[in-house]
Amino acid sequence: MKALIYHGPGRRTWEDAPDPQVIEPTDAIVRVDAVTICGTDLHILKGDVPTVEPGRILGHEAVGTVTATGGAVTTVKRGDRVLVSCITACGRCRYCRTGTYGQCLGGGGWILGHRIDGTQAEHVRVPFADTSTHLLPDGVTDEAALMLADILPTSYEVGVLNGRVRPGDTVVVVGAGPIGLAAITTARLFTPSYIIAVDPAASRLEAAKRLGADLLVGAGDDAAAAVSELTGGLGADVAIEAVGIPETFELCTRLVRPGGHVANVGVHGAPATLHLEDLWIRNLTITTGLVDTSSTPALLDMIAAGRLDPTTFITHRYELHDMDAAYQTFSDPAGTGALKVVLSRHADD
Amino acid sequence: MKALIYHGPGRRTWEDAPDPQVIEPTDAIVRVDAVTICGTDLHILKGDVPTVEPGRILGHEAVGTVTATGGAVTTVKRGDRVLVSCITACGRCRYCRTGTYGQCLGGGGWILGHRIDGTQAEHVRVPFADTSTHLLPDGVTDEAALMLADILPTSYEVGVLNGRVRPGDTVVVVGAGPIGLAAITTARLFTPSYIIAVDPAASRLEAAKRLGADLLVGAGDDAAAAVSELTGGLGADVAIEAVGIPETFELCTRLVRPGGHVANVGVHGAPATLHLEDLWIRNLTITTGLVDTSSTPALLDMIAAGRLDPTTFITHRYELHDMDAAYQTFSDPAGTGALKVVLSRHADD
Repeated sequence: MKALIYHGPGRRTWEDAPDPQVIEPTDAIVRVDAVTICGTDLHILKGDVPTVEPGRILGHEAVGTVTATGGAVTTVKRGDRVLVSCITACGRCRYCRTGTYGQCLGGGGWILGHRIDGTQAEHVRVPFADTSTHLLPDGVTDEAALMLADILPTSYEVGVLNGRVRPGDTVVVVGAGPIGLAAITTARLFTPSYIIAVDPAASRLEAAKRLGADLLVGAGDDAAAAVSELTGGLGADVAIEAVGIPETFELCTRLVRPGGHVANVGVHGAPATLHLEDLWIRNLTITTGLVDTSSTPALLDMIAAGRLDPTTFITHRYELHDMDAAYQTFSDPAGTGALKVVLSRHADD
Repeated sequence: MKALIYHGPGRRTWEDAPDPQVIEPTDAIVRVDAVTICGTDLHILKGDVPTVEPGRILGHEAVGTVTATGGAVTTVKRGDRVLVSCITACGRCRYCRTGTYGQCLGGGGWILGHRIDGTQAEHVRVPFADTSTHLLPDGVTDEAALMLADILPTSYEVGVLNGRVRPGDTVVVVGAGPIGLAAITTARLFTPSYIIAVDPAASRLEAAKRLGADLLVGAGDDAAAAVSELTGGLGADVAIEAVGIPETFELCTRLVRPGGHVANVGVHGAPATLHLEDLWIRNLTITTGLVDTSSTPALLDMIAAGRLDPTTFITHRYELHDMDAAYQTFSDPAGTGALKVVLSRHADD
């Protein structure tokens, strides 16, 4: 088969690779029908994730068709259309037993395209298939489901649910890339009074506005002043960090009111300063987290019910074999306006 | 009357001061029957709390007898024995209406011995008396109630409740001063499996052991190794920070397991480093806060029911007029072994 292989910082090729095989009785082999690229893949290509070794097939998001299963798999079978989640779950450890699949101690967690070969390929081996794939209902398209492999549950669980967004809240989302936009979309499920989007890129703020942001804070604007004015000097109820640098995290801690929540979603590579000399008295709650994908079944139901349309994040579409062009587009969002790119298997392949 | 007056950094005197009068119809005047000194008073005397102006009577914890009330006060009356809480609450603002009295926007919050004259005096004016005092049941002594003016609800609400201690948890308490010890005492209400106390002072660890700590980590011991060994390498469920310096806060973030809670109780004067490059993926929840004293009625009930005995924190007793000696004792815990000192009005005064 063909696959996108990481060859060390800055180097990737779409090349031949061995077809994956069932190794464990809990494995499934899935033919990849649609796959996307994540900002985390770009981090890996920069060399920011040293646990990814050269030779690794990247990608942790896919929709596909089961082609083979190990003897212990009972939930999915050959021919089933499934979502391959970015989180693999053993289903047995103490974390999995509380739905905290992202922290799986039994060999799962974020492993696809990280510790084992991933989804940016014609086929992928999915361990613990019973608890790591989701059968897709007929009413949910491949593209819609694909947005539930990572970004929607990530923004929803790590941003909106951890941030405890409630009706009537003022929610500020710092960073209006795909994750920030998905946070805006899923925050709206709780009917906040106001959503404020903060991003230096005008094109991303336009997308934020289209998805329901009420106030846009762009390059050169003073986010703290804007939030203060909107909230009568009090601050936002919830700030969702969707960038992953110290400055934006620290901004979030300044934007929330006493008793507010800062939900960090961004992937960070450097420490931040926590101004406890100001914050110790302010009843702040700060959360961090990796997605568990425990919300995925509910989000799938919402798509099927017509309550959620995550295909609005998709800006570019390619055939699977155009992986290189898709990476180029996704790597240059300022130039291409890319949010999410989808690569689909050609019907004749 | 006599009162302890702050005259700027390093300077305090027990001297004559005007008797307080009812100013607002919601005021009560309380004769101080028992009062204590808080670590925060020592911070003020070091000059760490610039909002406290010279001339201020210090103290925010007292038990006393109501001697006068304004025309609008209906809950307490002359002759009633009351707890004067460290938190004054207007009872009307958006924070008070959610029980978040510490963040009161209506002129309350921590104001006694801070923005208005406090309790280290023969009499004190208590604003918003209906919502800022607690009538004392007969079965609760002055000394027991006094521990509920600040340290017990602070450790319970900001440490144990914010940290979401649950049965079976491993709880590490960093700092075994009065606040840390009160955290150990109130954490036990939730029957954790293990409580680990971390403090360089052997005398404080002894107190921690007496109050129920299962494992003691002292000077020269490796807290991370001790917690790791006890938890099979996983980390503690909850870490309670009860010191207030960057090093102990950062230690807490290293001691908790993925999905753990760090509850900061310490009063900080400097920023800490938050290692988001490690923590972003670990499902951490960090909380800060000022006490609300919303738990005070329940804690009073528990004392009356014999479920809680907070007088174990009291190491030294003085008459009210011996304020200077009490401050000297409390300021030198290493030398005196002081935890909480109580100053009581002489029965003949």
